[in-house]
Order: sequence, then structure tokens, then C-alpha cells
Amino acid sequence: MITLSDCVRMDHRDPIASLRDQFNLPPNVIYLDGNSLGAQPKGAVERANQVLQKEWGNDLIRSWNTAGWFDLPSRLGNLLAPLVGAKPDEIVVSDSTSINLFKALAAALSIQQKKYPKKKTIVSERNNFPTDLYIVQGITEWLDLDFELILVDKPEQLKWAINKDTAVVLLTHVNYRTGAMHDMHELNALAKEHHALTIWDLSHSAGAVPVDLNGSQADFAVGCTYKYLNGGPGAPAYIWVAQRHLPDFKNPLSGWWGHASPFDMQDTFTPTASIRRALCGTQPIISLSLVESGLEIFRRTDMTAIRKKSLALTDLFIQLIEDNCASHGLRLITPKDHAQRGSHVSYMHPHAYPLIQSLIQRDIIGDYREPSVMRFGFTPLYTSYADVWNAADALRDILDKNAYEINAPRHAVT
Amino acid sequence: MITLSDCVRMDHRDPIASLRDQFNLPPNVIYLDGNSLGAQPKGAVERANQVLQKEWGNDLIRSWNTAGWFDLPSRLGNLLAPLVGAKPDEIVVSDSTSINLFKALAAALSIQQKKYPKKKTIVSERNNFPTDLYIVQGITEWLDLDFELILVDKPEQLKWAINKDTAVVLLTHVNYRTGAMHDMHELNALAKEHHALTIWDLSHSAGAVPVDLNGSQADFAVGCTYKYLNGGPGAPAYIWVAQRHLPDFKNPLSGWWGHASPFDMQDTFTPTASIRRALCGTQPIISLSLVESGLEIFRRTDMTAIRKKSLALTDLFIQLIEDNCASHGLRLITPKDHAQRGSHVSYMHPHAYPLIQSLIQRDIIGDYREPSVMRFGFTPLYTSYADVWNAADALRDILDKNAYEINAPRHAVT
Repeated sequence: MITLSDCVRMDHRDPIASLRDQFNLPPNVIYLDGNSLGAQPKGAVERANQVLQKEWGNDLIRSWNTAGWFDLPSRLGNLLAPLVGAKPDEIVVSDSTSINLFKALAAALSIQQKKYPKKKTIVSERNNFPTDLYIVQGITEWLDLDFELILVDKPEQLKWAINKDTAVVLLTHVNYRTGAMHDMHELNALAKEHHALTIWDLSHSAGAVPVDLNGSQADFAVGCTYKYLNGGPGAPAYIWVAQRHLPDFKNPLSGWWGHASPFDMQDTFTPTASIRRALCGTQPIISLSLVESGLEIFRRTDMTAIRKKSLALTDLFIQLIEDNCASHGLRLITPKDHAQRGSHVSYMHPHAYPLIQSLIQRDIIGDYREPSVMRFGFTPLYTSYADVWNAADALRDILDKNAYEINAPRHAVT
Repeated sequence: MITLSDCVRMDHRDPIASLRDQFNLPPNVIYLDGNSLGAQPKGAVERANQVLQKEWGNDLIRSWNTAGWFDLPSRLGNLLAPLVGAKPDEIVVSDSTSINLFKALAAALSIQQKKYPKKKTIVSERNNFPTDLYIVQGITEWLDLDFELILVDKPEQLKWAINKDTAVVLLTHVNYRTGAMHDMHELNALAKEHHALTIWDLSHSAGAVPVDLNGSQADFAVGCTYKYLNGGPGAPAYIWVAQRHLPDFKNPLSGWWGHASPFDMQDTFTPTASIRRALCGTQPIISLSLVESGLEIFRRTDMTAIRKKSLALTDLFIQLIEDNCASHGLRLITPKDHAQRGSHVSYMHPHAYPLIQSLIQRDIIGDYREPSVMRFGFTPLYTSYADVWNAADALRDILDKNAYEINAPRHAVT
């Protein structure tokens, strides 16, 4: 059996254990929800003070020049690029994931309409993050466009669903509920074979698992910065466009930040040549600035080290639950195969909701997702092996003692 | 002649003079650019600490329930409502002005397409804030929609441009360059006569001049919170939809925040019945939270008092320039008629750019807009009559002495 002492030893041997010191973690809390909202980098507090006191408070309007606010989306994009296999000047950070997905989908459909007007399906998964599907619905229903959304129930059905009719394949790389990860190389190749364009939502991937957008020949990608990238609650999202599509990237959200000469105040829109054509309007500078503090921590390590620890943490959790909770009816819905696993682990249980609430009462924070799913996120930058042991042990204890309230009242946000 | 002592006396008599204490204004600076970026409410620093330390840092994911993050767009909308003649639950604060304009325009076009399919023009002004025009271009060019953008060169041409062919009238209430204000009642009535829908951009109005959205029978409105509302750099914007249009308000940016049951994780989008159907994805919580500190200050006064002081400040500045700079070729482009004036005053001058730079070097901050325009914004909440006198006197001094560098190097952001 694996003991707490074994885990403490693993922490001593962990080459990136010291990165935990870069974060303000609440005392006595085991935080396994960084896949929903990442913890706070210490640098973010310092940066917030700087933006509040100096940039806004004192320098006011002058900060547009002196603090480089207008360049922030590009500067942050360049910090993010190496984490997802992108090159400099291929990513901008701005707006929300949903809005960036709208831009990517609108551009992809417009490219396909011109080149392959008969392609009329958009392929995705029924258990994709719902808002991604809502965006497809919004864009196609708005003017009754004749695109059909094809939703597969199982990942293996993608190989039939992606065919000559497919205009766009829209997938989340790591599933928000199960933690299952797609093979991005394989699916990009399959899409390419059928002249379909791929859009990847990297919200549960970036900063947690290696992603190779250029190497795998992806077409478009979007994602949020507030999960494994620790950018702060609801921090602005990002969009990546493969260089080969940039000249044809037509953004219907064509605001002045995407203009070739934004300060000339021309009355017609001419998109800039760069990825900044994916920008729209003025960005929330304070939230945007803090994204930098999260991204800077990644400069102290690399995705290989992060992935190695992520797999070790999730392996450990799965093993501990197998060893100690076998009789309690937990059903693992995260793939055991490393190649198919992201950085969170999910179990189904008929009492998943009260179980999670009971853990939270003990300051062990995972979360609940409909239906009947307990999620545990493992952030290699700050989760320790001892955290994993203590969390698994608390869950065992709660299950052994039936120490949860079956009819726990539901919160609005679960 | 009006003396500095006269102005100091006006400050003593000013019933809202004490509101200046609610702001962190940099010492020795006369800030006349609140129409571009509002000054910092003292409450914003306190609120930022709370969001950083407690909500994000300590409570982490639990703040979605305990800090009411999900309700913020509505809570802020309700604080803003009385300033623009809206009722509770008619406004949400989220995303950027450009994105909200896209939503309003998309919804308006969709409503008109169904009811009056022959209406094919969108009427605006050539000197509208450019990004508003870019959004029209983005939406119509994306799928080659057959709407035509009609731009009038002078406000008085609107009465001909708005006619039976007009689907949508898209105007900025107070012009960003000239400070000229439209008659919202009159133009809404004219549009209604022709079954056209109006969209108002209130970026330079809200918090500076009285606006009566419901009373004037407007259809849609959007605007930013970082100018006269003092919400912080690039703070999220707002959108208002007249209740009568809400059931038909079809938002193509249909993200999960606009869903009727956002936490049920359904795979199809059903818009909520309320104004929250104008929301899209997760919002930048830190920037969004600080908007509250700006809006709360307005609870200490009302738009009648603010408007009265705004007109007194702008009258004073115009008078001082007339009295003291008559020979220097400044051309006032802001209407003298109170009914047509917002809260900033603009002058054209061949050397407008170096003049503004020279003022900024003396810590008197106005701004420059192409072509050859100096703008001076007067924020009744914190601009004093003495500020106005000192600014006018500095401009006089610079002009009298030719104390400006004609070839001043241009900043990227002017």
C-alpha cells in the first residue's frame, strides 16, 4: 500500500516541487480544482498593485503609451505560444473563449464556403463543453445558415462523422467532464484528408498537457487562461490561427483593435495582416495584465516536466482510489491510457454531489459536474503528491463512514 | 474677465464638489481626459484587494457561489440603469462595446429581416466612432449580406437618410470628436415613423449627460464603462435592450451565460427570457468587479446635478478660451447650444498635436484626435472650476509664447 510517507518522499524528489512557492494557496486547503479556476500566482498581487496604483491611478491615459496596454494581447500570446506548439506572433489573448470560438468558426465557415461550398456539416461531440455547441447554434441559426451540426456520442465515431461533407471539425482537446484527451495529430490528419478544417478548444489542455498546434497541422485553436494557466477568474482567452489561414481569416467581429491603422480613425475597416486581425474592441486591462503573472511561471519549467508530473499525480490518485475505495461503487470515467488522459480525474457515483460537498467541508476542493460526476484536477505547478494522498484518504474516510449528507442542498454554481 | 479667484468661489458653492474626494487623482495633475479613461475611484483599490486576496486568492472556486460572480453583469446593470433611463433588469455589463454592438446589430437585423425584409440600409454618420462602423462592415461583409451602410456627413442629413429603406439607425449619442450631442427623442421618433430600429452608443454619454432610453423609446443601446463611469481601463461594456424587443432578441454570440439553465450542461442552447440572453461567455471578474466602485459614486448625486455642473464647466472653458485666446486661431467644433453639447469641448488648430503634448508636459492632460483636434473632457464628479481656469490659462500661456514643439514626435496611441 502507498503511504503518506511515500508521497512525501515523492515530493522531495519532484524536480518542480518548488514552483508551488510561486502561488498564494490558502492555508490548510487541498486545492484540486485548478482545472476550473487556477490558483493565484504571487506575482499577480504585485502586478495588480502596479496596474492599479501606477498605471491606472497615477499615469491614467498616458499608460496607453507608457505601459504598453495596446500590445498586451500580443505580448501575452507570445508567452503562451511555446506551451501549445505555436510560434511567436501567432496567438493573441483577448475576449472570452466563446467569442474567440465564434471568430474562428465564422472565419473557417467563410473559408470553406468559398473553396468547398458543398461542405455543409460541422462535426463535434455531444459531450463537448456545452457553450462550444451553443456558439455553433448561435452562428448557424442567426441567419438560418444551412450548416448542420453533427454530434457524435463516442470519440471513435469521429472517423465516420468526418467525411466529404464536413466543413469544420470542432473539438475540445481534453474533455471537461471525463478528462479524456483526443489524439490531435490523428484527427487533424483525418480532417485534412477530407479537406475539413479543425478548431481545437484547449481550455483543459494549455499548461497541463503538451500541445503541438503547428506540428500536428491544426487549423485554429482557442482556449481560456483561467484554468491551468492561472490567469485569474474569468481572465481573457486566446485565439490561434495557422499562418496559412491568416490572409483568409475574416473576423466578423471586426473592431478597431484589429485594424491595420487603428489610430488613423478611418471610416472603413482594413484588417491588419497579423494575428491581431482576430482582435475586436478595447480589452479589460486589469484582468488582462494579470494573465502575464500566470504565464511567467511556465518560463521556469517546460511542458515535458509538467506532463511527467501530471501523469504521476493522476496515476497516483487512480491507484489510491483503486486500493482503498474499491467497494464503494466509484466508477472511473477518465481513461487509464496515458495517451488519452488530460490532467484531471473523474469518477461517477450516485452520491457524487454530496460527496464533493463533504470533501469541500474538509477543505479538499474538487468539483461536481452533471450528471453524477466528481472531478479532481491536478495542477503540476502546485499540487503535491501528499495533497493527492490526503485527498484520496479523505474520500475513503467519507465513504467508509457514510459521512455525507445525501440530500445536500445544491448551490447555484456547482 | 473671469479670475482664478472667481473659479475658486464657484468650487466653494458647487454642491457636488466633495465627490472629488471619492477619487485618487494624481497630485499636481489637471485631468481633462475622463472622456477617454476615467479617474480611479478610491473604492476600486479596496475592491481590488478584496477580489484579489479573498475572492480569488483564498476562496478560489467557491467565490462563484459566495461572491456572486455570475450575477455581476446584472448587479452592475442595475446600478447603471437609473443613469440612462433604464429600468432594473434591462441592462447587463459584459464584453466590449464593439461586441455588444455586434449583438445589438445582429439582433436588430434579424428582427427587421423577418418583419420588413425589404429594408436594406443601415444609417450612421461618417464621423461616428470608427469601430462602430467597422462592426457594421464586419457583420455585413462576413457572408455578403445585402445591407448597405449609408453614412451621412452632417447630422442634419439624417432626416433624409432615415426613410422607408432603413432597417437600423446606428448612432453615437455624443460624438467622440466634436462633443456634439444628438436629440435622442427626435431621432427615435423619426426612426419609428419609418419602422427603423435605433441602436445608440452611449460611450460618451452615460454618467455625463442625462439619457432617457425608455422615455425616448430607443430600441437598443450599448456603451463603455471606462470613461465617465470610471470603471477602470478597458472595463467591460454594457448592453440595453428595450423590453418589447427582448423576446425576439436573437444573439448569435450565444454562450452559456445567456442560457436559460446554464448549469444543467444541456447540449442545445435555449436563451433565458431576461436581458441575460445578451451575455455570452465567462467574464473577466477582476475588471468587472471594479466597475461597481465607479457606479456606486453616482448614488451620492443625480444626473440633474451632474448635467448642471457639466454645462457650467464646459461653458466656463469656452468662455475663457474666447476671452484669452481669441487671436490664436483655435476653432471651437463643439456646439455652443446646451441642448447639443456633451461633456467635452474640442478645438481644431493646425498645431493641435504639439499643443496637447505641451499641455501634457505641464501635467494638464487632454488628448488629441485626428485630424487636428484637441479634446478636453470635463467630468463633473471630479473636475473643479479652478482646474478649468488653470487649464485654459496654461493653453493661453503656451499659445502666447509659442511654447510648443511643432514637430513633436507622435506616440503610437494618441
